[in-house]
Amino acid sequence: MKTFFSEDHRLHFPQAELSGGEFVTPYERPSRIEYVLARLKERKFGEIVAPGPIDMGPVRTLLDPGFLAFLETAYDEWKAAGQGGEVIAAGMPTRRQRHDRIPRNIDGKVEYYCHASETAITGGTWRAAQSSMASAQAAQREVANGARAAFALCRPPGHHATSDQYGGYCFLNNAAVVAQMFRDQGAGRVAILDVDFHHGNGTQDIFYRRGDVLFASIHGDPLDAYPYFAGFADEMGEGEGEGANINVPFGPGTAYGPWAEALDGVVRRITNWGAEALVVSLGVDAYKDDPISFFKLDSPDFLDCGRRIGRMGLPTVFCMEGGYAIEQVGLNTVNVLEGFEDA
Amino acid sequence: MKTFFSEDHRLHFPQAELSGGEFVTPYERPSRIEYVLARLKERKFGEIVAPGPIDMGPVRTLLDPGFLAFLETAYDEWKAAGQGGEVIAAGMPTRRQRHDRIPRNIDGKVEYYCHASETAITGGTWRAAQSSMASAQAAQREVANGARAAFALCRPPGHHATSDQYGGYCFLNNAAVVAQMFRDQGAGRVAILDVDFHHGNGTQDIFYRRGDVLFASIHGDPLDAYPYFAGFADEMGEGEGEGANINVPFGPGTAYGPWAEALDGVVRRITNWGAEALVVSLGVDAYKDDPISFFKLDSPDFLDCGRRIGRMGLPTVFCMEGGYAIEQVGLNTVNVLEGFEDA
Ligand SMILES: [Zn+2]
Ligand SMILES: [Zn+2]
Repeated sequence: MKTFFSEDHRLHFPQAELSGGEFVTPYERPSRIEYVLARLKERKFGEIVAPGPIDMGPVRTLLDPGFLAFLETAYDEWKAAGQGGEVIAAGMPTRRQRHDRIPRNIDGKVEYYCHASETAITGGTWRAAQSSMASAQAAQREVANGARAAFALCRPPGHHATSDQYGGYCFLNNAAVVAQMFRDQGAGRVAILDVDFHHGNGTQDIFYRRGDVLFASIHGDPLDAYPYFAGFADEMGEGEGEGANINVPFGPGTAYGPWAEALDGVVRRITNWGAEALVVSLGVDAYKDDPISFFKLDSPDFLDCGRRIGRMGLPTVFCMEGGYAIEQVGLNTVNVLEGFEDA
Repeated sequence: MKTFFSEDHRLHFPQAELSGGEFVTPYERPSRIEYVLARLKERKFGEIVAPGPIDMGPVRTLLDPGFLAFLETAYDEWKAAGQGGEVIAAGMPTRRQRHDRIPRNIDGKVEYYCHASETAITGGTWRAAQSSMASAQAAQREVANGARAAFALCRPPGHHATSDQYGGYCFLNNAAVVAQMFRDQGAGRVAILDVDFHHGNGTQDIFYRRGDVLFASIHGDPLDAYPYFAGFADEMGEGEGEGANINVPFGPGTAYGPWAEALDGVVRRITNWGAEALVVSLGVDAYKDDPISFFKLDSPDFLDCGRRIGRMGLPTVFCMEGGYAIEQVGLNTVNVLEGFEDA
């Protein structure tokens, strides 16, 4: 399969991530992607293609216009207000607070449009997020035009971004827009399978009340892991979306056995549900040595995981999400893709 | 009037406040209090007395037991988990997230019990917060025993703390507990007047559905100022509390003229409502040179403000809240108290 990738991801590299009460170099950093590119080339996996420009149409349809305008101007407004550092939210509207008024002040706007303070916005973030989305859209078009599958090597990732909040290293939800594009082009039902260690709270949120896009995620129990306040098994969708949201949380130390069993269960449900296209939120931070995660998948497990996904036989777009054991991110990511092609 | 004050406030002095995407020395720092003490002594204002121990009874009645247990153990749990810095929340449950599950993980617990990330918890924070509350309680007992008024020189402040969230430099809501103590001792109706520049969102939240404690606040418009997501004029209480919550927000540059007019309006409403005791959340960050605020009150205005409060003729407990133009905090604070006594 082809890989779609833009060098513009380098425009997003914050100096600081708030972690453990300190600023650290962000776990989500450009070098992650180098290892994926190197492994793709080493394995002669397929052509690596730069995407065309972003198509803002489906992005504007799915996401909040105020949020998009904010992302575009936040860094400049922040600097114009005399702030010394990168854009970092010092709070956010929480329980029993107002969620219906958007502050005029840039500090307040940042808080309104953010759901996790570890994630900084820099001068290049908006362009990088757009280029990441452009890769996802190019991969979608590749599959829409008849390819069995395509890989969007997205950075920054997307699955934590909701329609109106960034956080968790994510700004624009690539997988959600890809699913929407399949729908707009006529697919009756589209499934999103999120195998990243972290719950894809942004994607879930975007489709929670919709019956045409199913979201399924296997992830660290939110009682123990970010994003903490979403991803419980009893979140099954609402209204028309009831039954079209599947969460399988696991606790610390979970190995591939139970994980693969959960995957098979999810795959069956997606198949029975009648998905006509599949979007995979491909994070590889379920890996045993990931520095911010607690599952115990080993590199060969990712090959097997790819095979199980491939056996579904669906037109599939892979969107890169997390994975922070940097030197193994390439191996583990390409293993999923190779397993998929082997299926 | 007497001042109640504990040296233990020094136990709380975080190294870091998240501000403008950087760590800065906290605006809310121990030296603020030195200037108040110095001014009290210079003016021979009255006896300065150390409080006895905290009475946890009314604190436990009013505030969430899980929150209190968290504050007591958070720093040790954080350090036991290997975190490098002081306790700083990297997020919090926001819109469309779960607010009904408390994480097991200490990172997640911090996010659950916090509503603003500028505020760090240190090893001495819990003891300092308790000593601050002890001063407030001692001042309340002084007034309950017949004094016209008493001043609790509280640090850390309290008015941003809700029953289950810290933030805005506040951990335990001193003013709220003082109001509750008046109620428990037989006062039918108690009013809390918050003259701090920032909306007292914690106090409002604690009494929002209660008709026996009125909360009134004059503050920076939340569209422009922290806490951003509370303090709008249309927040008037709910249920039994309907009509017992008064917010008067003003925009940048507001001077004493309109501010004093708002104060008179609030004073009339408190009087007509039939308050039998008054708690004043005494912040002096409405001062023209305050570094994090935008009102234009001058030092003599605080004298006048105190007079207007004093003319209400109510038994009154003053609880120290904010004020960050450090060298003027003493002058402005004692001006309010002197104006009160002059009334
Ligand atoms: Zn992840
Ligand atoms: Zn204040």
